[in-house]
Amino acid sequence: MRLVRAKLLERYLPILQWGRGYDRTALTNDLVAAVIVTIMLIPQSLAYALLAGLPAEMGLYASILPLVAYAIFGTSRALAVGPVAVVSLLTAAAVGKVATPGSADYATAAITLAFLSGLFLTFLGLFRLGFLANFLSHPVIAGFITASGIIIATSQLKHILGVPASGHNLLELLRSLFAHLDETNYYTLAVGLPATAFLFWVRKGLKPRLLKAGVKPRIADILAKAGPVGAVVVTTLAAWLFGLKQRGVAIVGDVPQGLPPLTLPHFDAELWTSLLGAAVLISIIGFVESVSVAQTLAAKKRQRIVPDQELIGLGASNIAASVSGGYPVTGGFARSVVNFDAGAETPAAGAFTAVGIALAAMALTPLLFFLPKATLAATIIVAVLSLVDFSILKTTWNYSRADFAAVAATILITLGLGVELGVSAGVALSVFLYLYRTSRPHIAEVGLVPGTEHFRNIERHKVQTDPAILTIRVDENLYFANARYLEDYLYDRVVGDKDLKHVILMCSAVNEIDTSALESLEAIDHRLHDMGITLHLSEVKGPVMDRLGRTKFLAELSGRVFLSQFAAVKELSA
Amino acid sequence: MRLVRAKLLERYLPILQWGRGYDRTALTNDLVAAVIVTIMLIPQSLAYALLAGLPAEMGLYASILPLVAYAIFGTSRALAVGPVAVVSLLTAAAVGKVATPGSADYATAAITLAFLSGLFLTFLGLFRLGFLANFLSHPVIAGFITASGIIIATSQLKHILGVPASGHNLLELLRSLFAHLDETNYYTLAVGLPATAFLFWVRKGLKPRLLKAGVKPRIADILAKAGPVGAVVVTTLAAWLFGLKQRGVAIVGDVPQGLPPLTLPHFDAELWTSLLGAAVLISIIGFVESVSVAQTLAAKKRQRIVPDQELIGLGASNIAASVSGGYPVTGGFARSVVNFDAGAETPAAGAFTAVGIALAAMALTPLLFFLPKATLAATIIVAVLSLVDFSILKTTWNYSRADFAAVAATILITLGLGVELGVSAGVALSVFLYLYRTSRPHIAEVGLVPGTEHFRNIERHKVQTDPAILTIRVDENLYFANARYLEDYLYDRVVGDKDLKHVILMCSAVNEIDTSALESLEAIDHRLHDMGITLHLSEVKGPVMDRLGRTKFLAELSGRVFLSQFAAVKELSA
Repeated sequence: MRLVRAKLLERYLPILQWGRGYDRTALTNDLVAAVIVTIMLIPQSLAYALLAGLPAEMGLYASILPLVAYAIFGTSRALAVGPVAVVSLLTAAAVGKVATPGSADYATAAITLAFLSGLFLTFLGLFRLGFLANFLSHPVIAGFITASGIIIATSQLKHILGVPASGHNLLELLRSLFAHLDETNYYTLAVGLPATAFLFWVRKGLKPRLLKAGVKPRIADILAKAGPVGAVVVTTLAAWLFGLKQRGVAIVGDVPQGLPPLTLPHFDAELWTSLLGAAVLISIIGFVESVSVAQTLAAKKRQRIVPDQELIGLGASNIAASVSGGYPVTGGFARSVVNFDAGAETPAAGAFTAVGIALAAMALTPLLFFLPKATLAATIIVAVLSLVDFSILKTTWNYSRADFAAVAATILITLGLGVELGVSAGVALSVFLYLYRTSRPHIAEVGLVPGTEHFRNIERHKVQTDPAILTIRVDENLYFANARYLEDYLYDRVVGDKDLKHVILMCSAVNEIDTSALESLEAIDHRLHDMGITLHLSEVKGPVMDRLGRTKFLAELSGRVFLSQFAAVKELSA
Repeated sequence: MRLVRAKLLERYLPILQWGRGYDRTALTNDLVAAVIVTIMLIPQSLAYALLAGLPAEMGLYASILPLVAYAIFGTSRALAVGPVAVVSLLTAAAVGKVATPGSADYATAAITLAFLSGLFLTFLGLFRLGFLANFLSHPVIAGFITASGIIIATSQLKHILGVPASGHNLLELLRSLFAHLDETNYYTLAVGLPATAFLFWVRKGLKPRLLKAGVKPRIADILAKAGPVGAVVVTTLAAWLFGLKQRGVAIVGDVPQGLPPLTLPHFDAELWTSLLGAAVLISIIGFVESVSVAQTLAAKKRQRIVPDQELIGLGASNIAASVSGGYPVTGGFARSVVNFDAGAETPAAGAFTAVGIALAAMALTPLLFFLPKATLAATIIVAVLSLVDFSILKTTWNYSRADFAAVAATILITLGLGVELGVSAGVALSVFLYLYRTSRPHIAEVGLVPGTEHFRNIERHKVQTDPAILTIRVDENLYFANARYLEDYLYDRVVGDKDLKHVILMCSAVNEIDTSALESLEAIDHRLHDMGITLHLSEVKGPVMDRLGRTKFLAELSGRVFLSQFAAVKELSA
């Protein structure tokens, strides 16, 4: 009993497992990783809060308590949790519908969204419903992330140009940008453009150059990751020294100094109803992204993660975000890889990162007053453009037109009509196309390969057939979506074939027969019987046969069930 | 070219095919069938119009031009088209949302609904989209019809009791009936109860008794079918003689005499939008019902119907209904069987029935003035109670719990929340449960049966295995919904197994690998590689291999693809 309880505790609190063996080496490695991730996370947190339409400090708050919660409940040793680009965009889309950006209601709605998302994730985890995320196919996710990256980058152009612009899809954004193009603030542009160029260069060119100059790889890596911090420092100093605020350059301004405040989600039925759909979407997209990076990193060290416990970990993080002034968070791809590469050994690295961000929130916020928003926008643009990857279109076009259709629809609808509709359409279309394909399964008429006991497609092989016997092989489960298709196929095939006496349904590729298909088989049997034709089955799989045995179908079948197709033809020919 | 045009014409106008060989025998048989169906259809048409909340004459109108349209465009030789119970109920539910029963708007909305349904059916037929109806599984239909039958019968009790009552689901109906129970009109009850009892007796007891008394089977059959007409005549006379109208018995009253008027659907975007969902539902349910009876009857004579042309036939019927004062129609089960049994040989029987109903509309309508509504309610109750059949619950419980869940949900939601929600929930649930099952496929670890080349589940058979080789067989297509499941399964299985050097994925039951599954296989390969394990495939089907050949997966795979599982194990063991 005690053992069971201890095991249960360990399952729901993975910290008890890894915490026991925690030693000095792990501590050192986790601390080093935490420092690097903290440096990377400070500008990102501020920037993504801006993207979500929230005050900059909420980005920092979302990077403190949620990381501690994940360290307790999460199973990945390397996942770095916090605000990420796509979830910030989804937050802006959802919260923008119920409140005005900049208002107190807007922040409260974002906090409530984090709470709902946390509840939903925890619910999925406790009831082991993580499989629901599987309905989001890889190509749909890839298409969605690419389209989101484009929308996010476009939405940040207004900060680079210093113009007001808004919109929830690409067309709206571009139209709005063009309408305000003549209002471009050239001082802002003079900050934003070089910052963007610099960050691109840091990402692509800095590390190789440092390595060439003889800098140690580890140091080169840290310096490259610190690029955004460099941009922040330089542009903040510039804004202060040259009084750019007076020239119309938007700056971050007052950021409250200190630890996150205690907040509570707004308990209002109407607000919850209007945010629920977005919470589900954010949860599932966040989970899918998070679990795939966690799984990849775990595999490299032959460790494992527990997807259902990951749901609880992410759920706890989001609830933590909602009580400490944050907004929806999830595991970030780039920062998790950085965390892993920097040597993080346990989730404690995340907790140390939280301490680092907390120190920043307490000490550094006054220094952020003059930080130009254009710099943060540049950080976002450079980060999200690396997510944009149209190669999935080419891959799917070559490999599967159905997947191509789902990706293309996801990208076009996300760009044209917005993120929520885009991803929903992608999921619906990929489910529909899968059902459509299984609703018209491959059906082959087969005959005996001479000299063997094998039966093959009469259109592809030289085979023996008997005009009195028709054998049909269906390469798919028989279920409601294709039951009538089989009826129509068989029926069209036998009408007018006067010599036919026996039809054999070869079931070697049928893993399931549902009630609809069973009724169709009964109907086929009756109709064939009315035509003077007998229906037989062959090579029915064990579990399928077990279930058929519980019905009256086998007793009422006009023909017989043969163990092998060869036995069936041998007997019926005789 | 001419031949092609003639063939196309014949495809879209089946009348050109059967009309050519039309002879005297066929004419006689069709005329006899038409007389019997007309007798059956007159009271039914009036009753179903009442059920739909429409004036009685609209039921007659819906049984004239639509039958002619079907005779021209339909492919079934026996299908009898007209107003049916379930579609009338769906019409009442849909039209009741946009207009008040009894108003002119209500009738116009019903006409518009027929027009939309006709357009949708024709659209499906022209673009060969009939497969969409397959997503309505047999058990869901059975459950829906049973629940609808109960709702219809309950809704008619108010006419038997002579009380006002209303509601769109069972609870509302029962609550409303009980609230008005003390207002029961006993004169109405004195008409309704005996009429119901008589009709039940005619259905169950009359024919055997007539046969016993030496009446010829054919005559006995016609007399039994004429039962409702008898009830109509007797109760109408009673209402006239005893002045029942003055005693509070509701009667049909004035029915306009003459042929159907020319009507037009209401072209209003808002009305169309609010009726569209119902039109889709009515179309698909009507089509499914219609095509299954048509197929069954055609098979008995070794004839065939063309489902996509049936859509056009039903579409034309509904458009015909909308221009001649009718409301949505479809092929009725009972009347088609009667038509078939009575000897109908071609769709001309339907056209002759239309003439019969038209004569009735011109000559008999004044006689219907005193017809008590209770008699029509009794006709409906007796007709629909034969549709109520809970055996599907037992069948599915024994055979497939997933199907049982879908049926139970359909019945409960239809009864508790209404028809439209009920059938939609049933479809959604059955699709979801199918995907759910395929998302957790049967996965077996297999080993070599000693002395053979066969590989079987290690849990069920005594087989040889090698600690360095793991072979996994997945009994399902690999696609997005189960891609991650396979990843998790494999990953959990290999972590901690230090001896493992090779994993073989046996693909003999895999008919498809989609892009998501391909990416999962790539991820599995990379992760296994990171663990020092090699991934191999065996027994990949031809078409699947063809597609894989178009990707870089095979080139980058750490292991090899073996034609047979035996070859794989032989080579890797060596």
